[in-house]
Amino acid sequence: MENQLLKNGERIDQLFALDVKVIQSKDVFSYSVDSVLLARFPQVPKKNSLIVDLCAGNGAVGLFASRVTDCPIIQIELQEKLAEMGKRSILLNHLDGQMTMINDDLKNSLSHIKRSSVDLIFCNPPYFKLDQSFKQKQNQYLALARHEVTTSLDEVLYMSQQLLKTGGHLALVHRPARFAEIFDTLRKYKLAPKRIRMIHPKKDSEANIVLIDAIKDGGEGSIRFLPSLIIHGENGDYTDELKEIYYGK
Amino acid sequence: MENQLLKNGERIDQLFALDVKVIQSKDVFSYSVDSVLLARFPQVPKKNSLIVDLCAGNGAVGLFASRVTDCPIIQIELQEKLAEMGKRSILLNHLDGQMTMINDDLKNSLSHIKRSSVDLIFCNPPYFKLDQSFKQKQNQYLALARHEVTTSLDEVLYMSQQLLKTGGHLALVHRPARFAEIFDTLRKYKLAPKRIRMIHPKKDSEANIVLIDAIKDGGEGSIRFLPSLIIHGENGDYTDELKEIYYGK
Repeated sequence: MENQLLKNGERIDQLFALDVKVIQSKDVFSYSVDSVLLARFPQVPKKNSLIVDLCAGNGAVGLFASRVTDCPIIQIELQEKLAEMGKRSILLNHLDGQMTMINDDLKNSLSHIKRSSVDLIFCNPPYFKLDQSFKQKQNQYLALARHEVTTSLDEVLYMSQQLLKTGGHLALVHRPARFAEIFDTLRKYKLAPKRIRMIHPKKDSEANIVLIDAIKDGGEGSIRFLPSLIIHGENGDYTDELKEIYYGK
Repeated sequence: MENQLLKNGERIDQLFALDVKVIQSKDVFSYSVDSVLLARFPQVPKKNSLIVDLCAGNGAVGLFASRVTDCPIIQIELQEKLAEMGKRSILLNHLDGQMTMINDDLKNSLSHIKRSSVDLIFCNPPYFKLDQSFKQKQNQYLALARHEVTTSLDEVLYMSQQLLKTGGHLALVHRPARFAEIFDTLRKYKLAPKRIRMIHPKKDSEANIVLIDAIKDGGEGSIRFLPSLIIHGENGDYTDELKEIYYGK
């Protein structure tokens, strides 16, 4: 079956810690550590809840999350080629009873999902503004996944607010450099940041990834900055925490 | 000379890494790791600049900073007993040519220091709101130093904005739990956060101190989250970084 589901230039990557297989393509899209960390970051409801994965790409985040919940997971991805890879990964993992990949613009999310009905949204949006080192000629799949060509932080957070229940959680991964804008936009849409985790490539490096857990209509109470996560040890290998995330205990 | 400068119940603590002596009193005020970290956090101008230490307490932050600069340092502390201890520490370290302790309310800072004249402000303000676990009967010196009885975050940041030159830096130490309010208030007064460092008691603990470097009238550009600082190692001892801070290389 695996071979029937693979197209030219694609490969199957397995996240051993979770026993999930993800169809990838170097030329189109591969998940990175961001997706793995995002999937593990929030408290995922076990049942009787609705989970959405916005800007789903090839669907890695939702596939990882499926391992710790029985809730339905709806994924939305604009790019047809990526959404289609995601659909095949769902079949590959026999998750078609739990997961649905919708190939549409997230602007149209409310055509597929009821307003204020979602308990948890995962979102790994494009990180870069169009004016930052955007080159017209680069690979179009990667360009749309990485740069705010077809959507923006504002739009993603507005749509999250529309979809989430009061008290529902948004788990967002982004770049710390844009922290001020992220923080403002979250609060513009009444998404109160509650737990923040900084990811550093090495112990002595500045953070290059931030994970944020925000609650719709949450009070402006205290914010928790969790222990930092360090990706690589002194010797360049993954740290113990990363090894556990990738390979399990 | 040392004994002449000491009053009942006081002791002299020495920060070996910097060869500075600080008059302390357990009953009135002792500096803590917050002050040591704050003094080291910003880039301190070497000369031709004016440095101010707001909410100076017993003057520890300014005393530490004096070791890396020839610039004048003006300290402002409301509580007479603390300011007076600070004055004696200045004498003890023969720093009366460089440092001045002013015993006044920071509201009156502009009576002592010209508006828009300061290059760097250090500020270790009271951390706690009055409604948080404030007990009327506790030690009054500690109460005023820790709780927003006589000043507030808003007032401290407003005054920082008044004192700083355009492009001048505010180095602030505070509690991460109040991050949203700190972030908003900084920006209300056009103090743009640029460098942020989280301090964690242990590697696996949430941050309990945050250091923020903000620039007056700075652009809303990218924010850098520096490597986290961990205070204690697995065995409970100070980490190497802390040992170096306290005892030198």
